[in-house]
Amino acid sequence: MIADFQEWARGRQECIETSLQSLLPAATIAPERLHGSMRYAVLGGGKRVRPLLAFAAGELSGASEERVTIVAAAVELIHAYSLVHDDLPCMDDDILRRGKPTCHVEYDEATALLVGDSLQSLAFELLTGSQLADTPQVQLNMIKRLAQAAGSRGMAGGQAIDLANVGKTLNLPELEFMHIHKTGALIRAAVMLGAHCGNNLNDGELESLDHFAEHIGLAFQVVDDVLDAEATTATLGKTAGKDAEHNKPTYVSILGVSRARELAEELRHEAYQSLEGFDGTAVRLRQVTDFIIQREF
Amino acid sequence: MIADFQEWARGRQECIETSLQSLLPAATIAPERLHGSMRYAVLGGGKRVRPLLAFAAGELSGASEERVTIVAAAVELIHAYSLVHDDLPCMDDDILRRGKPTCHVEYDEATALLVGDSLQSLAFELLTGSQLADTPQVQLNMIKRLAQAAGSRGMAGGQAIDLANVGKTLNLPELEFMHIHKTGALIRAAVMLGAHCGNNLNDGELESLDHFAEHIGLAFQVVDDVLDAEATTATLGKTAGKDAEHNKPTYVSILGVSRARELAEELRHEAYQSLEGFDGTAVRLRQVTDFIIQREF
Repeated sequence: MIADFQEWARGRQECIETSLQSLLPAATIAPERLHGSMRYAVLGGGKRVRPLLAFAAGELSGASEERVTIVAAAVELIHAYSLVHDDLPCMDDDILRRGKPTCHVEYDEATALLVGDSLQSLAFELLTGSQLADTPQVQLNMIKRLAQAAGSRGMAGGQAIDLANVGKTLNLPELEFMHIHKTGALIRAAVMLGAHCGNNLNDGELESLDHFAEHIGLAFQVVDDVLDAEATTATLGKTAGKDAEHNKPTYVSILGVSRARELAEELRHEAYQSLEGFDGTAVRLRQVTDFIIQREF
Repeated sequence: MIADFQEWARGRQECIETSLQSLLPAATIAPERLHGSMRYAVLGGGKRVRPLLAFAAGELSGASEERVTIVAAAVELIHAYSLVHDDLPCMDDDILRRGKPTCHVEYDEATALLVGDSLQSLAFELLTGSQLADTPQVQLNMIKRLAQAAGSRGMAGGQAIDLANVGKTLNLPELEFMHIHKTGALIRAAVMLGAHCGNNLNDGELESLDHFAEHIGLAFQVVDDVLDAEATTATLGKTAGKDAEHNKPTYVSILGVSRARELAEELRHEAYQSLEGFDGTAVRLRQVTDFIIQREF
């Protein structure tokens, strides 16, 4: 089963990499430096967790791989843009990402700013370029969902809450509120957009899936905090220990490593329970869940 | 006629201001500082040239005011986001915009970054929240058009070309290439999205309208360059003379003020000609054209 998952995941990761390569403008098209830096920021790195979730949710809803690939690419572009902007000196001021110099270090700050801005536009452009759902109205709803997940009441809002919280003591509900926005919203969008590419889920099933996505989003962040506290920079491919260094509240700073690991297990259990109404079609979602909890980078 | 236009423009400007006020999240909704700064960056300023163009194009296509208002608001949010990011220290490093401190001066750089990011997401969210065209497929095409106009082959790409050109000597075609992207793409999108809210234009008419929009976009920039060279900071509401100070190539630096003014007139003439096939419904577009050419700020 694990070998089977690894093969499936590798296949999907290759698929998303190939698609991103062709969907991103070539570095030979003007403005060349901008297009080159967009490719630098997106290609050849990352676990592609959000695309894997979109593909797994697509299997649940009978979606075609062609449709899910575009949706997964759009979500990954939003994620990549957020990393480029988060790494800027006025935000986290980080120099290492996915084992490479961050975009503003490799290029310059102004270019990194425009890279993020352009990747966001491209994500929405992708969602309009081909048929991604059974009706254009469903496709409009998918765009709405991604826009909300990315915006001030989603991911960007989570970043703002994160900034406001530096140096503060948070309790668990406050930390959870931040992460539901900062990482949770986009992970949830990845799952739901993948599902909306297909058509065989009823409203109750979509609700269960959304419940699953909410919990897996939190679990992802809990594990991220544990890894940041325990891993080395080499394993992580980004600067390790920076949460503590920046005096940022994390699941580890509030709960300690041991209790944070328990919490991740509880969230996995809850996520699994949300999938109980589904038959074998949910096998990939369960496997991606395990991958998220057990990953070491 | 001029009094009539002023009244019409004032009415549309009030309409867009009221809509933006209700479409932007309240400053009392978390994250409060982000939402407050988004409102600061968007509300209470600007000529709203792009919304006026959208409304005027909507009159040509028999579009409802309700639809055009949303489309105009979305385009204005993209414009506002670009101003916030352009003013950042790593870009133009400007402290004054619309007679007020720029967003990063009034708040901080990280907040200004997130304001721009969130305004872009909100623009796309607005285009999915209600029916804006006769079919959802046309609405998808409108979103595509805005995404392309904003992205690396549109406005953000124009910014990148602008950055690459600082201190360089450009010829007229090179300068035009930059502005077709930097300001032209979004102005063109404003016109075409306004038109697509209605349904009584055929393909030939849409093509004429696009030709109009292309020329009015260039004319807008030529006039902008003349104003930057001649106006005072007080009249302009933003730092005057900064193009020359930053050693940026402009229509004035290449052509001189007198020839640049002539060019603006030639572009107006060309824009007028594109509207010849339309009857009286194009009166507002001609008036907005005059407003763009004759404005003093």
